[in-house]
Amino acid sequence: MATPIGSSADAIGRLKELDREARRFEHIGALLGWDRETGMPPRAIEERAHQEALISALHHEKITAPQVGELLEHATAEEGTLDAAFLTVKRREYEKNTRVPTEFVKEMTELTSRAQAVWATARAENDFPAFEPFLDRIVEMNRRLSDYLGFQDHPYDALLDQYEPYATTAEIDRAFCDLEAGLVPLVAAIAEVRPPDDSFLRHRYPADGQERFSRELMVALGYDLERGRLDRSAHPFTTTLGAQDVRITTRYQEDFLQGSLFGTIHETGHALYELGMPAELQGTLLAEGTSLGVHESQSRLWENMIGRSRPFWIHWLPRLQAIFPTQLEGVSVDQFYRAVNRVAPSHIRVEADEVTYSLHVILRFRLEVALISGDLSVKDVPEAWRATSRALLGIAPESDSTGVLQDVHWSFGGFGYFPTYALGNLYAAQLLDVIQRDIPDLWDRVEEGDTSQVLAWLRSHVHAAGSTRRARELMKDVTGRPLGAESFLSYLTSKYGEIYRL
Amino acid sequence: MATPIGSSADAIGRLKELDREARRFEHIGALLGWDRETGMPPRAIEERAHQEALISALHHEKITAPQVGELLEHATAEEGTLDAAFLTVKRREYEKNTRVPTEFVKEMTELTSRAQAVWATARAENDFPAFEPFLDRIVEMNRRLSDYLGFQDHPYDALLDQYEPYATTAEIDRAFCDLEAGLVPLVAAIAEVRPPDDSFLRHRYPADGQERFSRELMVALGYDLERGRLDRSAHPFTTTLGAQDVRITTRYQEDFLQGSLFGTIHETGHALYELGMPAELQGTLLAEGTSLGVHESQSRLWENMIGRSRPFWIHWLPRLQAIFPTQLEGVSVDQFYRAVNRVAPSHIRVEADEVTYSLHVILRFRLEVALISGDLSVKDVPEAWRATSRALLGIAPESDSTGVLQDVHWSFGGFGYFPTYALGNLYAAQLLDVIQRDIPDLWDRVEEGDTSQVLAWLRSHVHAAGSTRRARELMKDVTGRPLGAESFLSYLTSKYGEIYRL
Repeated sequence: MATPIGSSADAIGRLKELDREARRFEHIGALLGWDRETGMPPRAIEERAHQEALISALHHEKITAPQVGELLEHATAEEGTLDAAFLTVKRREYEKNTRVPTEFVKEMTELTSRAQAVWATARAENDFPAFEPFLDRIVEMNRRLSDYLGFQDHPYDALLDQYEPYATTAEIDRAFCDLEAGLVPLVAAIAEVRPPDDSFLRHRYPADGQERFSRELMVALGYDLERGRLDRSAHPFTTTLGAQDVRITTRYQEDFLQGSLFGTIHETGHALYELGMPAELQGTLLAEGTSLGVHESQSRLWENMIGRSRPFWIHWLPRLQAIFPTQLEGVSVDQFYRAVNRVAPSHIRVEADEVTYSLHVILRFRLEVALISGDLSVKDVPEAWRATSRALLGIAPESDSTGVLQDVHWSFGGFGYFPTYALGNLYAAQLLDVIQRDIPDLWDRVEEGDTSQVLAWLRSHVHAAGSTRRARELMKDVTGRPLGAESFLSYLTSKYGEIYRL
Repeated sequence: MATPIGSSADAIGRLKELDREARRFEHIGALLGWDRETGMPPRAIEERAHQEALISALHHEKITAPQVGELLEHATAEEGTLDAAFLTVKRREYEKNTRVPTEFVKEMTELTSRAQAVWATARAENDFPAFEPFLDRIVEMNRRLSDYLGFQDHPYDALLDQYEPYATTAEIDRAFCDLEAGLVPLVAAIAEVRPPDDSFLRHRYPADGQERFSRELMVALGYDLERGRLDRSAHPFTTTLGAQDVRITTRYQEDFLQGSLFGTIHETGHALYELGMPAELQGTLLAEGTSLGVHESQSRLWENMIGRSRPFWIHWLPRLQAIFPTQLEGVSVDQFYRAVNRVAPSHIRVEADEVTYSLHVILRFRLEVALISGDLSVKDVPEAWRATSRALLGIAPESDSTGVLQDVHWSFGGFGYFPTYALGNLYAAQLLDVIQRDIPDLWDRVEEGDTSQVLAWLRSHVHAAGSTRRARELMKDVTGRPLGAESFLSYLTSKYGEIYRL
């Protein structure tokens, strides 16, 4: 190494500099990806893949440079300081990325790149056997990945840890068992009751009007259009191009109004988290959500707990009716509220309601754990899917296309990702408990269209920490209790008990 | 160097690989710039500057790497082959970029970054003295730049060469003298005649309608929306994000219809050139316009010679009237044609008509040459501007804001750029002569809205060469004559003689 490292402070300074540059590559990569999904001319796809690979390689080089390892060895900081938090996440990033051999990453990239194409065709043609050998190799590679990354109790821990740092299979399993125990009877009870009418949500809602409403809504929730944009894409997402540039996308289905309504609120929730990082963290690795579960808690809190509440629509329904006067003529707040909270077990996760959604996640979590531990072999997954679905949701998909083949995640190798979706629900409910306590007039304010106190609360309690704190500990401190299903179940029981008059 | 170079073929192969990567950085930089101008959230500007600087530094590193120099030493190719052309432009790129010391580039970047801000304020406040010391340093630095780059006859040659490779001050001066001699009396003769009525172009034309028409027009001219997009920006531009991704922007002034009409055709002309590069050049340095002058010949040919022709509007006016029926009610093709070709000396270059435009360029060329040769000092520029303007256009600006301060170019250090705008006119007219000879029914086809033969002609005669050939030689071979003002003057005399009944 050319430059001597010098003091620990020098080492930290240099690490921060290198980190800042790594973030820049991340943000440039985010622009390339955002453009690909929002408006890139179709024929540019191949060149774009090369451009993205180039930036991604430079980013990887930056975070795994031997210099980073040496600097990390020389850097120490007093516990509890920002520098200590920085060193922790930086060290984590370095280790995660250097433990896995380059050869393995290349193999995985090639495998999953082919697997995604095969999966897409297999799903379209309901042909699991075509995908089976790929899934087989993906499972096997994920087991190897788990060995590279290292774990204490369960090989699945290492995979989980990629998305939900420090989480364990055991604690999630516990929470999910409780969740299942509460959800299954609730779903059964709801199934006994005549569902609310939601036919008016399927009238024709022109995309332009939906977009106008989305824009108005996101701004009202606190999204700053000077620091982001709203665009259209096939699959909604949030992406961070910098501390001052967090963009969201949504899609407008003209015969499915709630798609964009709640999709926009959901992505706004993610974006508000990213935009809420305090100035001193910006441009560093600490200016990120601390885990995908906590990230999802933000999107779900806004989407479901605020956005699907009755007070929220007391304010917003008249505005929506102004844009769609004929489609929503004569619809009352109560009708609307009940319609957007209609519960019905279905096969497709991304279309699931708030009550059954987590059951879809539990199903995937169980199968993933069994696959990684070797208790389940790939050829038996379709049958296991049907059996678990029957146990959890009371229904089993008729085809693999709407069963084992429905999600893209496995085809890109993402084992350990799914649980974070349900963790988001659990954390969101725990947060809501405290928010309701801290803001006594919460629902009166929401009824007036004012959610600024909610945002301010989240800013100071959750966003301000960035990833300086571990998800589990942050959530425990903020909500006063460890991860569990209790809050979420009591929230659901109360809300849907009232809607369905259980 | 780690890898031995081996044969010349190996060296060329490796150079091409390195070049491909350099192009990728260029294209990524183009996306960052495109996004900045079309839709980036305003507060992202500072982070974006860092991102662009990072990519630009990586690009510079790539093209000036010592390895490139070594490979160039070992690489030879048979004259007339594609490899030989590649080596020529690659060598040129390497030398241009290594001759200038990094320290100088840094100094220039810092100077012009400050100068642009100062210039913007100075222009707004009509305060040349505020900008004067910056212009003074910029001229001085351009003289040093010229020394670094090297030249044979005139220091201005080196600056010119940055934008119009291999062009000389002497040859441009000759052409511009002839041009002046023809234009000045033409402008004077036109000034004697009552100008055509163009008031209907200043009705209110909503931007959405203009955009609809722009899109229809560009597609009809041969622009492939699968390989590009049309967006809005404050200043129209064309940018290349890859062989399959060339985007244009335009702006819609609601009380100035011809702005977007001809702006869109102009940028489409640039884009068709970039999109017309043959497959074997794509992804290499050869897949670029061979000079800015030739680039401008494409945009001007489409904008003025085709787009401002009477046959063109025989086809397109009814379509435009369908979009703007009240604004263009009762306007005949002849009225429209005459209105969009109205000539009047004015102060602002970018708003100038086809006849007076080149005089604005000659003015700047003369002052630049005098400044670089030391015959004119910066403090005397405002007066020299007025005197030259009077001599060329018959009018002198009342303020420096509409005189010496009107263009951004000097503030960013771009000496040598302006002449290419007028070269474009000269080359375009020379090309038109041959196109009219090769396509006897050209104007009948244009009248039917079919310009495909023009595009096919340009593709095979101009675009196919990319930058494998020098501008001057390519144009001479294609048009059968060296650079001169004759074609352009005779085109103008005939067209405007008829319009103004001279």
